[in-house]
Amino acid sequence: MKLWEKGIPTDKQIEHFTVGNDRELDLVLAKYDALGSIAHAKMLGQIGLLTQEETTSLVDALNDIIADIVVGNFEIEDSFEDVHSKIEYLLTEKLGDAGKKIHTARSRNDQVLVDVHLYLKDELKALKEQVKTLFDLLMESAEKHQNVLLPGYTHLQIAMPSSFGMWFSAYAESLIDDVTMLNAASKIVDQNPLGSAAGYGSSFPINRTFTTQELGFETLKFNAVAAQMSRGKAEKTVAFAMSSVAATLSKFAMDVCLYMSQNFDFISLPAHLTTGSSIMPHKKNPDVFELIRGKCNKIQALPYEITLITNNLPSGYHRDLQLLKEGLFPALQNLKACLDIAIFSVKDITVKDNILKDKKYDYLFTVDTLNEMVVAGIPFRDAYKAVAEQLEAGTYQSPKETKHTHEGSINNLCLDAIKDKMKAAF
Amino acid sequence: MKLWEKGIPTDKQIEHFTVGNDRELDLVLAKYDALGSIAHAKMLGQIGLLTQEETTSLVDALNDIIADIVVGNFEIEDSFEDVHSKIEYLLTEKLGDAGKKIHTARSRNDQVLVDVHLYLKDELKALKEQVKTLFDLLMESAEKHQNVLLPGYTHLQIAMPSSFGMWFSAYAESLIDDVTMLNAASKIVDQNPLGSAAGYGSSFPINRTFTTQELGFETLKFNAVAAQMSRGKAEKTVAFAMSSVAATLSKFAMDVCLYMSQNFDFISLPAHLTTGSSIMPHKKNPDVFELIRGKCNKIQALPYEITLITNNLPSGYHRDLQLLKEGLFPALQNLKACLDIAIFSVKDITVKDNILKDKKYDYLFTVDTLNEMVVAGIPFRDAYKAVAEQLEAGTYQSPKETKHTHEGSINNLCLDAIKDKMKAAF
Amino acid sequence: MKLWEKGIPTDKQIEHFTVGNDRELDLVLAKYDALGSIAHAKMLGQIGLLTQEETTSLVDALNDIIADIVVGNFEIEDSFEDVHSKIEYLLTEKLGDAGKKIHTARSRNDQVLVDVHLYLKDELKALKEQVKTLFDLLMESAEKHQNVLLPGYTHLQIAMPSSFGMWFSAYAESLIDDVTMLNAASKIVDQNPLGSAAGYGSSFPINRTFTTQELGFETLKFNAVAAQMSRGKAEKTVAFAMSSVAATLSKFAMDVCLYMSQNFDFISLPAHLTTGSSIMPHKKNPDVFELIRGKCNKIQALPYEITLITNNLPSGYHRDLQLLKEGLFPALQNLKACLDIAIFSVKDITVKDNILKDKKYDYLFTVDTLNEMVVAGIPFRDAYKAVAEQLEAGTYQSPKETKHTHEGSINNLCLDAIKDKMKAAF
Amino acid sequence: MKLWEKGIPTDKQIEHFTVGNDRELDLVLAKYDALGSIAHAKMLGQIGLLTQEETTSLVDALNDIIADIVVGNFEIEDSFEDVHSKIEYLLTEKLGDAGKKIHTARSRNDQVLVDVHLYLKDELKALKEQVKTLFDLLMESAEKHQNVLLPGYTHLQIAMPSSFGMWFSAYAESLIDDVTMLNAASKIVDQNPLGSAAGYGSSFPINRTFTTQELGFETLKFNAVAAQMSRGKAEKTVAFAMSSVAATLSKFAMDVCLYMSQNFDFISLPAHLTTGSSIMPHKKNPDVFELIRGKCNKIQALPYEITLITNNLPSGYHRDLQLLKEGLFPALQNLKACLDIAIFSVKDITVKDNILKDKKYDYLFTVDTLNEMVVAGIPFRDAYKAVAEQLEAGTYQSPKETKHTHEGSINNLCLDAIKDKMKAAF
Repeated sequence: MKLWEKGIPTDKQIEHFTVGNDRELDLVLAKYDALGSIAHAKMLGQIGLLTQEETTSLVDALNDIIADIVVGNFEIEDSFEDVHSKIEYLLTEKLGDAGKKIHTARSRNDQVLVDVHLYLKDELKALKEQVKTLFDLLMESAEKHQNVLLPGYTHLQIAMPSSFGMWFSAYAESLIDDVTMLNAASKIVDQNPLGSAAGYGSSFPINRTFTTQELGFETLKFNAVAAQMSRGKAEKTVAFAMSSVAATLSKFAMDVCLYMSQNFDFISLPAHLTTGSSIMPHKKNPDVFELIRGKCNKIQALPYEITLITNNLPSGYHRDLQLLKEGLFPALQNLKACLDIAIFSVKDITVKDNILKDKKYDYLFTVDTLNEMVVAGIPFRDAYKAVAEQLEAGTYQSPKETKHTHEGSINNLCLDAIKDKMKAAF
Repeated sequence: MKLWEKGIPTDKQIEHFTVGNDRELDLVLAKYDALGSIAHAKMLGQIGLLTQEETTSLVDALNDIIADIVVGNFEIEDSFEDVHSKIEYLLTEKLGDAGKKIHTARSRNDQVLVDVHLYLKDELKALKEQVKTLFDLLMESAEKHQNVLLPGYTHLQIAMPSSFGMWFSAYAESLIDDVTMLNAASKIVDQNPLGSAAGYGSSFPINRTFTTQELGFETLKFNAVAAQMSRGKAEKTVAFAMSSVAATLSKFAMDVCLYMSQNFDFISLPAHLTTGSSIMPHKKNPDVFELIRGKCNKIQALPYEITLITNNLPSGYHRDLQLLKEGLFPALQNLKACLDIAIFSVKDITVKDNILKDKKYDYLFTVDTLNEMVVAGIPFRDAYKAVAEQLEAGTYQSPKETKHTHEGSINNLCLDAIKDKMKAAF
Repeated sequence: MKLWEKGIPTDKQIEHFTVGNDRELDLVLAKYDALGSIAHAKMLGQIGLLTQEETTSLVDALNDIIADIVVGNFEIEDSFEDVHSKIEYLLTEKLGDAGKKIHTARSRNDQVLVDVHLYLKDELKALKEQVKTLFDLLMESAEKHQNVLLPGYTHLQIAMPSSFGMWFSAYAESLIDDVTMLNAASKIVDQNPLGSAAGYGSSFPINRTFTTQELGFETLKFNAVAAQMSRGKAEKTVAFAMSSVAATLSKFAMDVCLYMSQNFDFISLPAHLTTGSSIMPHKKNPDVFELIRGKCNKIQALPYEITLITNNLPSGYHRDLQLLKEGLFPALQNLKACLDIAIFSVKDITVKDNILKDKKYDYLFTVDTLNEMVVAGIPFRDAYKAVAEQLEAGTYQSPKETKHTHEGSINNLCLDAIKDKMKAAF
Repeated sequence: MKLWEKGIPTDKQIEHFTVGNDRELDLVLAKYDALGSIAHAKMLGQIGLLTQEETTSLVDALNDIIADIVVGNFEIEDSFEDVHSKIEYLLTEKLGDAGKKIHTARSRNDQVLVDVHLYLKDELKALKEQVKTLFDLLMESAEKHQNVLLPGYTHLQIAMPSSFGMWFSAYAESLIDDVTMLNAASKIVDQNPLGSAAGYGSSFPINRTFTTQELGFETLKFNAVAAQMSRGKAEKTVAFAMSSVAATLSKFAMDVCLYMSQNFDFISLPAHLTTGSSIMPHKKNPDVFELIRGKCNKIQALPYEITLITNNLPSGYHRDLQLLKEGLFPALQNLKACLDIAIFSVKDITVKDNILKDKKYDYLFTVDTLNEMVVAGIPFRDAYKAVAEQLEAGTYQSPKETKHTHEGSINNLCLDAIKDKMKAAF
């Protein structure tokens, strides 16, 4: 049963093409659709378009539906176009005319908008929690391994001393910026679009302030046209924030894969985090981190997909917007899975000791040497030339330990300050 | 003179390839490079690596350079690789050894990072101001034309009544979300990277808290590796925020171009905002809005360009990062130009009266009719069928005016609430 | 059973993360995997690594598997990692040691590469056929409606006379360029990668020329490293060609949606190609074409997704490459569905007569008028001024019909020449 | 002087915004604009719209202009909007009325289209030549170093033996696919759009077959609307082909940067191809290859930029299309510069001998060992287990040389076959 059915049989091929995989994608929206309907029903009661009895029976029936959804006892059969049709059908089947009245003063666009906003709010909150957990684990590793030195590279050339403390906490501190982006996205989706109807509001005397409070939104997206325009814009903003998290994870995974290579050999992973090869029995491949990297890179294509779908469409709803779910919903699950696996794996990274013993890392300390000369009063450019000459002559002697004292340096990681910054941002 | 020159002549072709258009791009950074150097010099004085005299002479010389930059009396000749070399040359020429000492305890990477962060902070502030100005003008137009009705479209099909008040203020309210994104980007660039040296900190006893306060940053990017990783990440975040603004402008421009078409004929533009055709004398083309649309669409490719350049690079500096300026700096100027032109043009949009007189817009009011029936107690689905039958039979009578009362509807635009929301977000 | 299993239990969560939806995606590869195995088995027989008997029994068993695949009697259970493991299991179960030997002198990378190349060859061929069918239908419509005039727009402003003949055949001729791109992609995937093993070849005395002929590839990708690098590159090339087709379809769909709007009203669609609205009973929405547009726009993001996954990965296999299937395989099905629906729909587009009767289109013919003056000997710029003055004074008279004679103009569409060009390109 | 000027002064700010950097970009089109005008003038003479004398004087004047362009004696002053205005001005200044007549039967859109098509044809030809030169050099290096072994990696893990012969010729063979893409793009731009006027043809009795032959195009883009739609589509196709080349170069550059790292140390570059560091005197950075990688990655964003600008625009010219030049023209120069530098640099890559002496590479040969067992009659899976056990027990002995014989393997690179394939593709 389609809501707009008017007796003309629609070709099966067309139906398959237009409905697509909406039923499957809509399952995650079911709970939010019912919650939106509860708020809407209460509001209709409040303004007198539903009787007290009708309101109560609708709210009760919707709560029953939510209970079914929560236990996995809800499906959208092929005879329904989407989640909205299915829930309206259930209400009408149970309550008759009162069930029909739930659609008063709203549109399917309205419902999709409010469902997606509620869903994205929850997902962003879950992402933030995961990012915080990963942050905590990275900070723990940084603290634990703060005295283990590591070569630092520029241009992939051995450059200056670094440490596992620096490396782990660098990614932790980067995640704080990703939280700032998640916060911005949360703020943008935390505006009630319900009541915008088909995108131009309606002549019903609805109370949008009531539903805003009922649904726990921070504010309204007031203008009905602006509310409609948030379709695509909200999704893209969330995709930007997801991309930020994904880029941090992807870079971390790239480092892990490189550091696992026998040519670096800085870290190792336990057997359950590596895979073998069908023809090379000695291989221990970091597939898990390669897939984190690949999946997170794929997620970074999402904002462009959304932009391509929505760009240059004039204002007002277009059916194209239905396709936004297809890319966004699985990407959210993928990002959450990547974070889960990173959380699961990061504590299992074993760092190697004595990496800097290898003589190819001797040059790492030239800058420290040079700096000592400068502190002793030799002008920088002259010190630079002197060290260059020692290197040329093969007479350079490496100190092999660091005495870095400034904020954010090897021997002064400022982990507490970084934790405070995360707390403030969260 | 290149800082790393060691006597080996570098092939001209190679030099041209590696330096690229850095000199030109670096001009916008010159002021920030000098400001960063002042803070650095003061800090070196504070920790005793410069004498009081050296500090004072460096700060004075740098202030002179800033004065020259401000009046346009500063250039980067072909003999200098970049702005950093040029300023160091000027200082050394004037102050001898004291000039050389400015490079103590920092790296070019350091300088680029702090310059770009300071520059982006200023540009984001300027963008926010422009967005606010455009917001104000759109709100003024919304207020002025709030009673002029307009057809609202869904699927590009005539759907429901809208108004110029709705249309103008919808874009205004959308801009508030863009301000939220600009704020997030500002927060992310407002972290002092100075002192990260080549990306791993240094053995100098520098005081990064001092330079943070001196330069007006809200906080430090503590971890030196994290500071280095902000190269690319800061630019991408700014590009995300720019994309948000650009998408709003582009959509508005698309509407303007469509509404200017003789097939819509909802608005007109004065002669100085249109152009003619070399062979069609009657044409009045909205080139200005087409170019806003096109330029804003191009800007939306910027995050992708940045991602492609930075993606899958392991941590640590790579020369590829130098290329980020090439895309970002002109894009910032383009977005500012688009905002300027939009600000310049939006007040010149003349709206047409009596648009809804055309009989093709009669159907616009079917929903209002239907709603009246519902408020009178007829179940929605039954009312829907009744109106559908009237339409089929050609007996439907259009009311031709709206009585919408809910928040954000045609007759209750909530302009003050929207202004308050902007004020809170700004 | 995983091929690389060595007795260490792999965590379930990790397994879920690494296997992903490979089993489902691999189903389309099953037939190609079996075909590749047949060629490989025959070759092993030819070089003496399999006995004649072993070869025959393997080929027979693989043909049985193909027969099962064709009738849908093949699945990849959760106990198998992928299609390759499943087929090898079936062979070993049936043939014992001979079954095990099929993996001699090849790697899973090898198999994926050859499977994907064979699959893409077939899909590209199918796409080309569909494009040709759509081309034929567009040309038929062009021929049928060649005398029905239409306004031509520039800047969305009414500009010059066009016709449905021009419009339909323009998209047809554009499709020829898309065929050129499909041909390039076909040529690139039509190179046998089998024998590259894990990406560096092997010490087995295999005969790659034999498998090339057996599998019907035009040539070999000789270098084993180059063959491995075609992973990602082949997919991206196919995605570029798909994007070309998709861009043409998307633009056509945009025109259809615009021309369906009551403000243009140039064409109409039968009821089964439109949908209604849940609250606006008069709506006839072109959802089918909006979804073609949206799906084709989404497809245009595919090359960027592939680029993001593969970019900056050094040579050699990385697990990230496994993710390429996820985006590409459904996109191929989506593009084929869009072409199917376009083929299904294009013949049902009803064109309106007498569009140009509306007085707003009078200006369309100013250029023709101007040209007549020029042909009569008046310099162009003078004629231009004269017509501009007539328009200013309101004295301009429109001819209302066209006499265009040059190649590719309204009255000389060159449909046969366009058909010949398609034939040559195909 | 603007062609469409009608006496209304256009605001300076608007003019700056709309003209942009067209004058600068148009310089590369000047020669093609004059060539297009010569063909157009001859055709106007052939159909009698110009006298023989007028034709001759126009052709002579245009040849003079070309001579000036070639020696760099041509500029587009601020008083001209674009190259077309400037050339028409020069003709009118010199020839009076005959000069004015050159614009008969064409439009600026027409001119831009034919100029860009001619320009892109030439640039694609130049790119192909460069790709061929790089191919030849890579093949030479492959031949020269075919016996120098190199570790082959999968998952960045040491996997199997490879060689510099494999490595160099792999990139060479990959370039053949890029030539296939360049060929497709060439075919697509090699269609004459001249005569499409403003995108709908005209009532002039022009002879487009004549200009097609005159300009050396392979065929016509017949349909005038299709010719107009090639704006954006031609550029995108060229960008796809450029992306293909760029991706190959970028990947090669990534390998070079990795192999230059002291942790791999497979190759070295001469001093003029490396740069130093301002604070690390021992550094020899592969900036040249990092910039090839970065620039080539940036180029891969170009198709997306073009798609964003053109997507969802209905048919017919829009001013947005003017912006295509801004991205494409510099990108072409950048790709040519990257190819030049790669050509310049590839022969200077010094390969290290005896890389495999390091004991960490011992495992490389396990597969060869395993294969020998298989050839000796042991089933693959059993051999696999045996080698795995030797590795576990530390008893594995590495052979340290390869005896690979199949097509495209280390000891049978098939360089001649690869050269033949390039010859056939070119």
